Formats: sequence, structure tokens, C-alpha cells
Amino acid sequence: MNLSGFIKFREKSPLIIAVDVEPEISIEGLLEQAKNYVAGVKFGLPYILRKGASEIKRITYRYRDNYFFIADIKLADIGFVGGLMIDLVKEMGFNAFIAHGFIGLEGALKEIKKKADELGLFLFVVAAMSHPGAEEIFNRNFISIVETCKKIGIDGYVAPATLPRYIRELRDLNPNAVIISPGVGAQGARVGDGISSGATFEIVGRRITLSRDPLVTLRELMSIYKDRGVI
Amino acid sequence: MNLSGFIKFREKSPLIIAVDVEPEISIEGLLEQAKNYVAGVKFGLPYILRKGASEIKRITYRYRDNYFFIADIKLADIGFVGGLMIDLVKEMGFNAFIAHGFIGLEGALKEIKKKADELGLFLFVVAAMSHPGAEEIFNRNFISIVETCKKIGIDGYVAPATLPRYIRELRDLNPNAVIISPGVGAQGARVGDGISSGATFEIVGRRITLSRDPLVTLRELMSIYKDRGVI
Repeated sequence: MNLSGFIKFREKSPLIIAVDVEPEISIEGLLEQAKNYVAGVKFGLPYILRKGASEIKRITYRYRDNYFFIADIKLADIGFVGGLMIDLVKEMGFNAFIAHGFIGLEGALKEIKKKADELGLFLFVVAAMSHPGAEEIFNRNFISIVETCKKIGIDGYVAPATLPRYIRELRDLNPNAVIISPGVGAQGARVGDGISSGATFEIVGRRITLSRDPLVTLRELMSIYKDRGVI
Repeated sequence: MNLSGFIKFREKSPLIIAVDVEPEISIEGLLEQAKNYVAGVKFGLPYILRKGASEIKRITYRYRDNYFFIADIKLADIGFVGGLMIDLVKEMGFNAFIAHGFIGLEGALKEIKKKADELGLFLFVVAAMSHPGAEEIFNRNFISIVETCKKIGIDGYVAPATLPRYIRELRDLNPNAVIISPGVGAQGARVGDGISSGATFEIVGRRITLSRDPLVTLRELMSIYKDRGVI
């Protein structure tokens, strides 16, 4: 999937569901109900590992017209291992995946971006993280990471709704980027904080996956987005 | 497994095999042949994903008396996702796993270390990386990462044989640490470079896994270690 593919999905919804554990009403139950409210689904690595590659593939293929699928593998390894992971991401039917930018270009991100382009996968790079400890080391490298990414034309980023200044700065530096923003809900940011700071999509996880009636939860979220004027 | 467990395995061999792709003579063929020459086996994430959790578990249980097993998941996520991954690592029969240190303590490494201790898993943190691009951003945070890790009593590290100054510095800062060192072979460091710089174990991957006669390769490696006086 490419940039314009994401823009199209954005017209439907600003919401991505993060699935790290089996949803309360099952993954297929949730994906059936969420069709009209959600643009994309981000599968976390523990979920991918627990389900297994063939089951993930079955789900992504079944719902390929309804959602885009992001593999949140937080790739942070050398190019050789990255290449093997990207092959798997493609085989499992994902449209995009997430890598860390701090690994640098030579022998890492450059090879990862090249392979992503070859396979038609969209690459998101983590520009800053959402947890308190991220400010200790990781986020101090924010500018280096974003400048590194710009050198090879990366236009997908992950930046936290809990620390919206990074989203704003990223949007200034990359007006056309697709920015996806976690941290809403369990991690403390309010619904709409990411979008109103410049994110393209907000990622909500446990609030939806742990809900016994996700349709009610999704309608609540949409109503908040409307109240805040972000959709 | 704990620190003294690793010291015991070190008496057998300074060598860890990195398995990222299916070995030329099959994984079980290799593990049968390597018993007398190799201390541990590091499974890379692509290999774990491709094999599936139950198959990995079968292998680690079958060879649990012969090797220690490290899950090279390069964990670089928030504590919640980390916890889910560590449960899986334990279920698959691993003795240890690898996380990135740049994620910081609060809401990340602190929770990860606590959970590892609870489950009896040994935690290795990546202190520096081996590829050329690692020097662009990642390795500039080397001191911050090691100081962060010391605060919560982490005594396992990954540091590259291609850049031995990091191994030497790490050994000075943590005399008792278990340091495992990749980068030997395909990535350019010579056999013995890691150990002679202060690493506890060297990690060799493709040179062994892609060999059609790994027994010959392993004997060659042991002979080089003896010539260089590191065993």
C-alpha cells in the first residue's frame, strides 16, 4: 500500500485498532462489527506469534477490503534479519509494518526500506515512544531519527499522543507524512489528542479489544471525535 | 537460568549458534552434531515466527540439557507488550531473551526485568550494534544505555565483535556480566575477536547454519579459538 491508499482510508475513519491480545468478543467478531468505524488494524508481535502466521494470513485476506493491516514488529535489527522478517510480513498479507529508526541507515534501515518498496509494503518508523521511560534515552534522539528517515524518503511515522509535541514537530517537518499515534486510552492520552496535534490516525487498543460491546465503544469514540471537531 | 548457569556452559564452549534461517542440514541435524562444541543457541525472530511456537518448544525441550536457548526478539516496546512477549518466550522453553535498552526504564525495561526475574529468564540488553549504521544514532547512546541497565541490576549484554571497543568498555563497567557478541563471520569480525576483547560468548550464524558439514566448520572454529589462546 502507498501514501494515497492511506489517505483514502482516512476518509472513512481516523481510527486504527491495536490488537495485542485476543479481543473479548474474538478477533473476527470484532472485525465484523468495526467495519464502518475503523480504518486499519495493527497486530502486535505477541498476537502474531500466538496466532501463528497462517491464521494471521487467513484474517488479513478475509478482511483485506475493509481494513489496512499493520504488522507492529518494531523491527530493530540488522538488514539481514530485517529482510527475513519483511518476507514474512508480506506472506501474512500485511500492507505495512513498523520498524525502529534508531538502528540507522547503513546495513539496516536502508535495506529495510528498499525491500519494503520492492514488496509494496508501507514502512512506518517509530519517531518517538509513548511511555514515561521513552524520555530517558529514546526520545532525545527524535531529531536524529527523523532526519535519518528523511534521507531515504520515509513518509510513515509512529509518534505518541501522550507527548503531542513530537507529533506537531513531525507534521511540520513532513507535511505529507502518514503519522499514526498510539497512547490513547490505557496509556493516558485523551481520544482526539493525537489527531488534533497532527496525526493522521490514532491507535486505540485495550479500550476496544477488552470491551464486551465494542460497537458501543466505537460509537462513543466517533462521537468524541465529532465533538472535538477532528472528523 | 542465572549468571552461574552461563558460567558453567562457558566451560564447555565460548560459542553460540545464531539460527535465523533453517540450517542447511536441518535444525535437529545441526543440534545433534554440535552438542560437544556449542554452549547455546540463539533463535532469531524470523525463525521463531516461521517455525511457530509449538515447534520451537519441542526443540528447546528436546535439547534443554545440551544447550541454553536465547530468544532474539530484540524487544523494543512498552512494558505491556513486553510482558506478553516474555510469557511466550517462557512458554517456548527459552532460558533467556534479548531486549533493547534504549527504551528506558519507566514503563518499559523496569517491567521487563521484573517479569524476567519472576519467570527465571535471563535478560540480555543490546548495548551496541554491529552494522555500520549503528554508529549513526544507536551506539552514540552506549553509555546512557549501560548506565540505565546498571540501575536495575541487568548483567547480560549484547555487544558487537565488529566494534570491540564497546565490549572492552562494557567489561570494564561490568566485570561479572555475561557478554554475548555477534558480528563474527558474515558481518566481518574474525573468529576470536569478541572473546579476546572480553566477551563471554561469541555468536556465529550463517558460517555454521549454511555449512553442509557443520562438524568440520565447528572443529575449524575450535581450532582457531585454541590458536588464538581464547579457550
